[in-house]
Amino acid sequence: MNLPLVGLKEERTKIQIKDTVIGGKEVVLMGGPCAVESETQMREAAKAVKEAGGQVLRGGVFKPRTSPYSFQGLGEEGVNYLAEAAAEHGLLTITEVVDEASLELIMDRIDILQIGSRNMQNFQLLKRIGELRKPVVLKRGLAATIEEWLNAAEYILAGGNSQVILCERGIRTYEPSTRNTLDLSAVSLVKELSHLPIIIDPSHAAGRRDLIPSLAKGAIAAGADGLLIEVHPNPDAAMSDGIQSLTPEQFNQLAEELVSVAKAVGRKLIRSNSFDKQANDLVLLRNKIDRIDREIIELLGERMKTAQEIGKQKRMGQIRDGKREHEIIQALQAWAQKVECPVDLIQAIYPLIFDRSIQLQLEGKEAEKSERVI
Amino acid sequence: MNLPLVGLKEERTKIQIKDTVIGGKEVVLMGGPCAVESETQMREAAKAVKEAGGQVLRGGVFKPRTSPYSFQGLGEEGVNYLAEAAAEHGLLTITEVVDEASLELIMDRIDILQIGSRNMQNFQLLKRIGELRKPVVLKRGLAATIEEWLNAAEYILAGGNSQVILCERGIRTYEPSTRNTLDLSAVSLVKELSHLPIIIDPSHAAGRRDLIPSLAKGAIAAGADGLLIEVHPNPDAAMSDGIQSLTPEQFNQLAEELVSVAKAVGRKLIRSNSFDKQANDLVLLRNKIDRIDREIIELLGERMKTAQEIGKQKRMGQIRDGKREHEIIQALQAWAQKVECPVDLIQAIYPLIFDRSIQLQLEGKEAEKSERVI
Amino acid sequence: MNLPLVGLKEERTKIQIKDTVIGGKEVVLMGGPCAVESETQMREAAKAVKEAGGQVLRGGVFKPRTSPYSFQGLGEEGVNYLAEAAAEHGLLTITEVVDEASLELIMDRIDILQIGSRNMQNFQLLKRIGELRKPVVLKRGLAATIEEWLNAAEYILAGGNSQVILCERGIRTYEPSTRNTLDLSAVSLVKELSHLPIIIDPSHAAGRRDLIPSLAKGAIAAGADGLLIEVHPNPDAAMSDGIQSLTPEQFNQLAEELVSVAKAVGRKLIRSNSFDKQANDLVLLRNKIDRIDREIIELLGERMKTAQEIGKQKRMGQIRDGKREHEIIQALQAWAQKVECPVDLIQAIYPLIFDRSIQLQLEGKEAEKSERVI
Amino acid sequence: MNLPLVGLKEERTKIQIKDTVIGGKEVVLMGGPCAVESETQMREAAKAVKEAGGQVLRGGVFKPRTSPYSFQGLGEEGVNYLAEAAAEHGLLTITEVVDEASLELIMDRIDILQIGSRNMQNFQLLKRIGELRKPVVLKRGLAATIEEWLNAAEYILAGGNSQVILCERGIRTYEPSTRNTLDLSAVSLVKELSHLPIIIDPSHAAGRRDLIPSLAKGAIAAGADGLLIEVHPNPDAAMSDGIQSLTPEQFNQLAEELVSVAKAVGRKLIRSNSFDKQANDLVLLRNKIDRIDREIIELLGERMKTAQEIGKQKRMGQIRDGKREHEIIQALQAWAQKVECPVDLIQAIYPLIFDRSIQLQLEGKEAEKSERVI
Repeated sequence: MNLPLVGLKEERTKIQIKDTVIGGKEVVLMGGPCAVESETQMREAAKAVKEAGGQVLRGGVFKPRTSPYSFQGLGEEGVNYLAEAAAEHGLLTITEVVDEASLELIMDRIDILQIGSRNMQNFQLLKRIGELRKPVVLKRGLAATIEEWLNAAEYILAGGNSQVILCERGIRTYEPSTRNTLDLSAVSLVKELSHLPIIIDPSHAAGRRDLIPSLAKGAIAAGADGLLIEVHPNPDAAMSDGIQSLTPEQFNQLAEELVSVAKAVGRKLIRSNSFDKQANDLVLLRNKIDRIDREIIELLGERMKTAQEIGKQKRMGQIRDGKREHEIIQALQAWAQKVECPVDLIQAIYPLIFDRSIQLQLEGKEAEKSERVI
Repeated sequence: MNLPLVGLKEERTKIQIKDTVIGGKEVVLMGGPCAVESETQMREAAKAVKEAGGQVLRGGVFKPRTSPYSFQGLGEEGVNYLAEAAAEHGLLTITEVVDEASLELIMDRIDILQIGSRNMQNFQLLKRIGELRKPVVLKRGLAATIEEWLNAAEYILAGGNSQVILCERGIRTYEPSTRNTLDLSAVSLVKELSHLPIIIDPSHAAGRRDLIPSLAKGAIAAGADGLLIEVHPNPDAAMSDGIQSLTPEQFNQLAEELVSVAKAVGRKLIRSNSFDKQANDLVLLRNKIDRIDREIIELLGERMKTAQEIGKQKRMGQIRDGKREHEIIQALQAWAQKVECPVDLIQAIYPLIFDRSIQLQLEGKEAEKSERVI
Repeated sequence: MNLPLVGLKEERTKIQIKDTVIGGKEVVLMGGPCAVESETQMREAAKAVKEAGGQVLRGGVFKPRTSPYSFQGLGEEGVNYLAEAAAEHGLLTITEVVDEASLELIMDRIDILQIGSRNMQNFQLLKRIGELRKPVVLKRGLAATIEEWLNAAEYILAGGNSQVILCERGIRTYEPSTRNTLDLSAVSLVKELSHLPIIIDPSHAAGRRDLIPSLAKGAIAAGADGLLIEVHPNPDAAMSDGIQSLTPEQFNQLAEELVSVAKAVGRKLIRSNSFDKQANDLVLLRNKIDRIDREIIELLGERMKTAQEIGKQKRMGQIRDGKREHEIIQALQAWAQKVECPVDLIQAIYPLIFDRSIQLQLEGKEAEKSERVI
Repeated sequence: MNLPLVGLKEERTKIQIKDTVIGGKEVVLMGGPCAVESETQMREAAKAVKEAGGQVLRGGVFKPRTSPYSFQGLGEEGVNYLAEAAAEHGLLTITEVVDEASLELIMDRIDILQIGSRNMQNFQLLKRIGELRKPVVLKRGLAATIEEWLNAAEYILAGGNSQVILCERGIRTYEPSTRNTLDLSAVSLVKELSHLPIIIDPSHAAGRRDLIPSLAKGAIAAGADGLLIEVHPNPDAAMSDGIQSLTPEQFNQLAEELVSVAKAVGRKLIRSNSFDKQANDLVLLRNKIDRIDREIIELLGERMKTAQEIGKQKRMGQIRDGKREHEIIQALQAWAQKVECPVDLIQAIYPLIFDRSIQLQLEGKEAEKSERVI
């Protein structure tokens, strides 16, 4: 592959748009309906995305449709709905661009351009987008190889626009249960072959809403930098793709579940945005604390068991090691500072944890001795 | 689909083989070489699988090979190596069965039978396996639909053998970068359509070792019940599939990474098996404690921030709520018991955590007041 | 590809079974129902195949079915129906073999074994068939590559059985309009890579009867050595694959159309078998003579025009060349003998044809002269 | 499918461009290089296409290439070379259009526009082409379904441009031996679902020159209305797709072979254009006459055999039927007139043919009698 610009570099590309960084530690959530249909619809969609902790509002205004008789999008009117709803909730925006005319309409009003699957090898459009200095999500073609996809990105970078985010959205296979087959290996392959960020669109991959949570979690665990998910305030009434759109509640639930998945692979999915909602905030926040507490305690349990294992391998005299304890506390305090945990709290509770660990180790030794005696 | 036996039931099937349960909360790890080659190779493979915390040792002794001139497997000799190596490390065994003769050889010596992709619609073999009362991993065919795969399982259940574990191993698509394309949606689809457990074989899906960690994590996050991974003590010298085999170190590293992914989706991957290794245990265990501590502190930081958010919404007089604190501690102690964390430790440290939280809330209120004053 | 036995040799393999040769100049027609259902059905099917000029009667008695609850075939009873119906009309027989038990039942009663798509990589079965000395049609797997398919054949030849006929039956693709996608390039590829004959099964490729004539003609024009087509006396009542079965009339019509296609590519499709039917024979035979006469006259017209073209390039003195005429007639008489045309007829009519040609050439020269004069 | 304009109508669409009709009885041959490279190259290509009897010269001047660093086409300069070379040999022209700018450059100079596979769902381009009144070849997308393809055509017809020619060029599958897999069933499917003509591009389907003759013949036999084939004066030096380009000699040879295939399915492929070449014309023309003669004699042989069959069913007194002979000769003379065969020749030779037939019938009767006597 001849990819002088797209090919792997020492540093991975991070694309910053206002406060949001795509390709960094944080996993980015983009949501919204397939097509912009009305002002109300977009307001509700924006609210749903914001509440779930999403950063980007999606919504198509120029729809490439298989049939000329299908709804083709609201055009300029749609741009207004999309931009205004997003502004109201402090969200970024993304919409698909299909040609020069559509580009002119959205260029100054939308934060991220999208090149759809059907245009992945519309090289004239790629060249035009390459002239801009604007983030663009480049969806993989319906049956494009990884190599063709990266070459399509190379067209954009060759023009001077380096803000490309790749988006895997399922490829065409023989399997009839799903609209497409999500090619999960694309995540790892793109990371090996290129420095560009990659996000996943599980909605178009599955083509059915029930599979999206599973695919979304899989995508984040596999290392994706974000998700582009179809969310509609009323999927049953959607003008397109309703069958694969999540409800706001489902999207919110999924976002919650993704928090721990992201963390499990050293990433972060921030849901703090959701704190601007007054109503049931207290309930949500308390639930969150409950969840955190349970996780802390699970970890403490695991810590104790591990300490016991260590104890088994120590001779009796080695059990307490004041110097190591001191060093550990210092290291943990540094870590606390880094992750914005009050340092004095660490100083207060860790000695208690150590004490309990040692106690367990000693109990273990006694038990061992008895066993040997018997 | 007409799947009276395989179709979704109220209760999901859990298959217990000695101490291992497939389809339960625990995620099962199966590893080993593509083909059994020698006694030494299997001993090293078994050691690697055991150390990583795996429960099942794999190794083909009857190899269905594309060319008649490729290595066709060691047959009975291979069964010996596989069974003995597994016994030595307390592992279960799995190997592929291809016909009546191979079945007779392994029937009493191997714990789990495997039906390979090429035989997924060898209906005579399916019927024969249906007569047994023995666990069987049924791999999805090279280009089988989900429906055909479940129907193949129905053949086995129709015979009376209900211990079927489905295994997705990638489907054939046009993409040349990978040997096959892992169909991640199979996990969720199978869970919706059937009560049978499903595991993932990322090795055959990717056909290259570099992608396996990403796919394996994705699979567990998506809800798979286990993984079947090719591990070879010396992949470069492997007689087949070396290119897609992990080294023991890579497998061990992956297992470690999977622990938190499994936990993130409410599952468990037990690595306790690995504690029988004396040598560098202390280093490993201390690293583990360090990791746990860092996670605890991150959570504490998040807890404090959340508490501050709550504080913002309270009136001054509401900050401290002794009754709620008491209730929380009681609930947490119950939880601690459940997850085997010393209960007294909770009693010791949580009041300290509460104190620090309240202090932060109060500081917040003061800051607010000053702002208002100014 | 390592195909020491299957790989291209100087001489192409011709498989002779009684009077029928597969892989020679003649294109072989195999027809019959998907599944043997009853004595009457097979008698009617055999009659239909015979009348159309087919040489081989097909009919499955051991049916590999996706669901265990679908009709699995009549077994031994079906073998009787198939063998007896074929014997009655002097047809050869072909049926699918799926394991040792089915092999034993059909071995001595059926002329050609078939290995179905689902068993293409059932290597144990391939090895078993390799031990026989019996013709076998090896169908390409659902999603097998050409290389895998030829390797499967190599398994059979490696066992000592060299009478393998490859059968392309469509591969699995994303296209939903057809059951499979006929891979026409397989014909040419197989001919380049191997000395084995290849036939086409358009019925399974299309999965719908309306496309079969077009695919069958395409296959023969592309160079296939024969066709395997589903024909059922009453497709609507068929127990399997009725939707893709031709009626006897459609099969007969297709056979008629194939005659000229085969001839166009230097092959032969013999319909002489059909002359045992008394009823409307005279009408059919006279229609045939009419068709032949029209073709002869078209050719004569073309010959005259071509002769005129030649005339334009000759000088006046060269027009008649007695020696060449004599040589031509001698060559044509040799040809006549070869294709069983009465030699004296050639001697009688060709001088008349030459005379008329020369007359036309001369007229052309006169016209030319006048043009030049004017 | 909602295809009010593209859907099947009583009358099939025929597209006339100057003397050439696409979709009629005649099979149309389009040939030329993948990319226009130079004046000389195009002159030689045009000569080759003309000599083979082709009607349309192809050559890309705006090349959609996977990599931005591959040759992108000569643009306007290329249009000149293409148009001039075609004019010189009386050929029509076709080239791919990719956007508004390219459209403006070629609109008045090129006879047929081409929309490439990668732009099949570039709906903006389809709408723009719909505004024109100009023939357009619409290639099937890399992995487009038949339904999507016909819908793409509907976009063009909906705009008012009804001169659409569909072009199947292979679809993306798992098979690695060929660049794509020719979907031959598209021919028959399109004819059933739509009134539009369909041509085949075997070059892109196969991606290798050796398979093209086989696929081309298959396509015509299956009912295609024409072929689009890559021909390059020097394939080894081609700037793109050399590996799949025929040499002029191969193209000429293929055209010759196609004549009889087209005829076999009631179509016509005219090679009369080729008669403007002086050099080795006599050899070619004589070869042609030889071929015709051999065919005539084969037919005469078949006629005699058929007459014998008829004889067997007649009673002795019925053998000669002067009235029927007279009628036949009259009908054949009418036919001769229609296909431009000298009528007097028929009058001269058919009585001889009748005489010989009757003689054979009588010999048959005698033989029969002797048999009965014995």
